[in-house]
Amino acid sequence: MEKVAIVGVGHSKFGRRTDLNLNELAFESIKEALIDAGITSKDIEHVTVGTMGGLSEESLPAVVINEYAGFNSKGLLRVEAACATGSAAIREAYTNIASGLCDIAIAIGVEKMTQVEGSTAIEMLGRAGSYLWEFENYGLTFPAYYAMYAIAHMKKFKTTEEQLGLVSVKAHKYGAMNNLAEFQKEINLDKVLNSPVVSWPLRLYNSCPVSDGSASVVLASEKAAKRLTDTPIWIKGLGAASDTANLSKRQSFTEIKSTSKAAEMAYKMAKISPKDIDVANVHDCFSISEIMAYEDLGFCKKGEGGKLIENKDTYIDGKIPVNLDGGLKAKGHPIGATGTSMIVEITKQLRNEGNKRQARIKNGIGLVHNLGGTGHTCYVTILSQ
Amino acid sequence: MEKVAIVGVGHSKFGRRTDLNLNELAFESIKEALIDAGITSKDIEHVTVGTMGGLSEESLPAVVINEYAGFNSKGLLRVEAACATGSAAIREAYTNIASGLCDIAIAIGVEKMTQVEGSTAIEMLGRAGSYLWEFENYGLTFPAYYAMYAIAHMKKFKTTEEQLGLVSVKAHKYGAMNNLAEFQKEINLDKVLNSPVVSWPLRLYNSCPVSDGSASVVLASEKAAKRLTDTPIWIKGLGAASDTANLSKRQSFTEIKSTSKAAEMAYKMAKISPKDIDVANVHDCFSISEIMAYEDLGFCKKGEGGKLIENKDTYIDGKIPVNLDGGLKAKGHPIGATGTSMIVEITKQLRNEGNKRQARIKNGIGLVHNLGGTGHTCYVTILSQ
Repeated sequence: MEKVAIVGVGHSKFGRRTDLNLNELAFESIKEALIDAGITSKDIEHVTVGTMGGLSEESLPAVVINEYAGFNSKGLLRVEAACATGSAAIREAYTNIASGLCDIAIAIGVEKMTQVEGSTAIEMLGRAGSYLWEFENYGLTFPAYYAMYAIAHMKKFKTTEEQLGLVSVKAHKYGAMNNLAEFQKEINLDKVLNSPVVSWPLRLYNSCPVSDGSASVVLASEKAAKRLTDTPIWIKGLGAASDTANLSKRQSFTEIKSTSKAAEMAYKMAKISPKDIDVANVHDCFSISEIMAYEDLGFCKKGEGGKLIENKDTYIDGKIPVNLDGGLKAKGHPIGATGTSMIVEITKQLRNEGNKRQARIKNGIGLVHNLGGTGHTCYVTILSQ
Repeated sequence: MEKVAIVGVGHSKFGRRTDLNLNELAFESIKEALIDAGITSKDIEHVTVGTMGGLSEESLPAVVINEYAGFNSKGLLRVEAACATGSAAIREAYTNIASGLCDIAIAIGVEKMTQVEGSTAIEMLGRAGSYLWEFENYGLTFPAYYAMYAIAHMKKFKTTEEQLGLVSVKAHKYGAMNNLAEFQKEINLDKVLNSPVVSWPLRLYNSCPVSDGSASVVLASEKAAKRLTDTPIWIKGLGAASDTANLSKRQSFTEIKSTSKAAEMAYKMAKISPKDIDVANVHDCFSISEIMAYEDLGFCKKGEGGKLIENKDTYIDGKIPVNLDGGLKAKGHPIGATGTSMIVEITKQLRNEGNKRQARIKNGIGLVHNLGGTGHTCYVTILSQ
């Protein structure tokens, strides 16, 4: 198998980006990724656009983004794996190189969600569950899905509202240090616990925002990577798994099985165990999902996720720093861009380019965990120096 | 690079399928492909769903299809490359195996287009061009885009309305022999030339229908393929290229540059030339696109596509038989399923399972040509015994 490295990364400002259309927003990160890789659009051989779509007037966003960015004549496609779309785009670009079809590819994650009329964005997200059964019958939208996980976790493991709140406090602490984050303001626990209930026990400050943004990653074969950079970051492990989207069929509400399965695949491929990881980004669409990710990824035992955040073990100087870019909660969650944004962050961490948000890198290994929907899809990606 | 074979194919009836929902329609071909491969859903490691989407209430069709078909726990994603979506799904499954990530994958192409309310299907298709410029400003929809190609081709190369009509006569001749085709009735040239004008010179019988359907393909590594079948059909060449979607920027209206570029890539990878091909399926969304494909794929010289059909060179006993399943025109064009359907047809031809539609196989090589939009994307896939 051909080795594949990340040789260029770019990241737009996340937030309400009414200043740009979809193409321009994508290009904000594409341009930076090309410059970072020291190449031009002409050097790219394959283009993967990760976007959920359905939220803009362009029904085929890959085509127009490809054209706007000057990738005309290249092979292109769009991929979608719900909120794990960005990671699916990385995997698609990876396999194109690893299979020998090309040497240099770009994975572009982009979403524009804030300018949809009426309640369409919330409705679109609600449809990302088991639509006909749970959305139409029971009116479930995303906060309610994750609230059920939170209630089950609190009941079984004595996880508290305070522990859920601490996840958000951490997110905002690092978001405040990230000038590309949507929210750059620290909050305290009182602020979280006194914010309005969205779906109990999840409150406004336990919930990630609806955002616009893009993040792009240039990938290269070993030969091309050695030519382009002195600091390649290698893709060492990939895992992808799914589970039923119909929550009434789940055996457990306190474990995301797609996470544990995808993690097992990725660890095996990378030949590492959770304790080897220096820094991680996990999918914190709601506070409970970060706590469950700690457990399902093996950062702690099942049921001890609440204690992990309480002990500050996932802070920058803790046992395993998590979401030092502010996570989905503070950085924002433009669906298609979230996975690629996580890869950008871990790449920069492994390059020791994190500045004041830099984790201590011992083993040179980082992990990205990206969930789709209610955990019906999960992608885990392991990077190494 | 790991060799990749097709070991199982399945194909639903194309047409107006109001008898099934999206999951059931997908499963009609999935089930057949699994049986053909001699495996069950448990043996599949990776699932790629090719669907344009936006035409059903399920915003994340990959998830629900995965679940309905019993692929729970597998890695999955959706891919989209406009009307070339099916071929993009095949490529995605191929690269997952060729890169060594898995041994057995399924590419599912599916679309349900006939039960959309009002004019949405036609509008969605119109948006698949350069939407803001051409659709909003000039009201261009797909027949008009391809009519411009036809007018340019008629002017430059003296291509005639009769030659355009003969493409459809051939399509219906073979469609009448294909019990999975939407239209199974032969037509004559008069019927075409007297049918209503949709966008001159393209008439109703020069235009493919809006259809429902699915087609699925099981792919396997060399090791797995040898265990599963005595008649593996190998993927020998893959090409993918793009061009501007903005027709006002095209240098030529008589050549689809993405086709010639993708074909060149695929021929090079497969180490063959056009004359080695025994049988082909090309993208005939409108009659003119089949004539241009003959030329851009190198089946004849530029400008001689009209003569190729006039001479019956692309009939079953001609120099290079094309679209012996009825093509998009008679078989139907359920967007996401079209590319996988073409791969199913050429696989069966190379297995000599074409029955009364069987071409003479000398070199054991077939080609699939699948266009996206106005030719802004093209995928070419070469298969061999």
